Amino acid sequence: MEFSSKLLEKAVYEMSQLPGIGKRTALRLVLHLLRQPQEQTVHLASALQHMRNDIKFCSSCHNISDTQLCEICANPRRTEDIICVVEDIRDVMAIENTSSFKGLYHVLGGKISPMDGIGPNDLNITTLVSKVKEGRVKELIFALSSTMEGDTTNFYIFKQIQDCEIVTSTIARGISVGNELEYTDEVTLGRSILNRIPFEASLKS
Amino acid sequence: MEFSSKLLEKAVYEMSQLPGIGKRTALRLVLHLLRQPQEQTVHLASALQHMRNDIKFCSSCHNISDTQLCEICANPRRTEDIICVVEDIRDVMAIENTSSFKGLYHVLGGKISPMDGIGPNDLNITTLVSKVKEGRVKELIFALSSTMEGDTTNFYIFKQIQDCEIVTSTIARGISVGNELEYTDEVTLGRSILNRIPFEASLKS
Repeated sequence: MEFSSKLLEKAVYEMSQLPGIGKRTALRLVLHLLRQPQEQTVHLASALQHMRNDIKFCSSCHNISDTQLCEICANPRRTEDIICVVEDIRDVMAIENTSSFKGLYHVLGGKISPMDGIGPNDLNITTLVSKVKEGRVKELIFALSSTMEGDTTNFYIFKQIQDCEIVTSTIARGISVGNELEYTDEVTLGRSILNRIPFEASLKS
Repeated sequence: MEFSSKLLEKAVYEMSQLPGIGKRTALRLVLHLLRQPQEQTVHLASALQHMRNDIKFCSSCHNISDTQLCEICANPRRTEDIICVVEDIRDVMAIENTSSFKGLYHVLGGKISPMDGIGPNDLNITTLVSKVKEGRVKELIFALSSTMEGDTTNFYIFKQIQDCEIVTSTIARGISVGNELEYTDEVTLGRSILNRIPFEASLKS
């Protein structure tokens, strides 16, 4: 693409560095900003910079938070000794939306992925292991995505805490509520049969 | 969506004001910026602000330009008396890519669209009409998209200059080169038969 303006070219270039945004989309977004009042661009730029400079992470669960301890960790009505291990803030938001979990979270900040150069030391694993070793945890629920990276991360953590007397569990994989059997992939369907639960238990949930 | 941080919420909100970017995509983009080095956000924010504050428009054709007269208008090798009327800078870039046009452009900055509250006075029409009335133009090529708004805009401009002695034309509509007849929509196919050109002329292009 040949641009008639260096300023425009630079803005399009920076915009196209975002994931899933190509040069054409970036140009469309940038031209949109040009047509809108100047304030919109000012607000966007300053919101991004403020967030990047001033964002804090909860000192306990590493979730994004404006306070030293996040709202969930600071809430006295949450069960402190059940910890759900998740990848990032989006998982916390998704689980919170279900209102089904009253324990605390631990945000790893990613999964172990040698392909992307992410090792155990890039994630918030040591703080989780020390929480467990201090005896503050009764149950650890692994809620990472069930990919090879997710399974590797689960296993890496499990190895470090297997001598501690705690319950470890993973969230149930199975057929989505309301979905038809015939359209479910084989792995999920197979697992849902292997991990079947007593009928009486299914009536309660 | 419930956010655990006001800073994050504000950044996601501002990002989701861009066209085609919903809350979920905005969150994904913003979390990506958080994982990247701080400089990336600084560069993005400053590129957007610089562009919005300092961008200039060519005093002749209204295209985006860093100089008072854009490169195309300032180029002595372009034919000055043939002007191609387009909607925005993307059309200029698309036509320039073809290397088929050696005249100048006039960027309207949009189309007349009462539904979106855009009237003739919001577009760069008066400067175009005065260029024509000053006798500096021999031919005007309308290259707006063939929608109702595009046709309205073409007609509005045509009415104002119809007493001047110039040639007006619109770019040819027809079947895309390489496309099959049977998959072409009826309107395009119909027009391409009505506006057929002599076979000898087609051999030259």
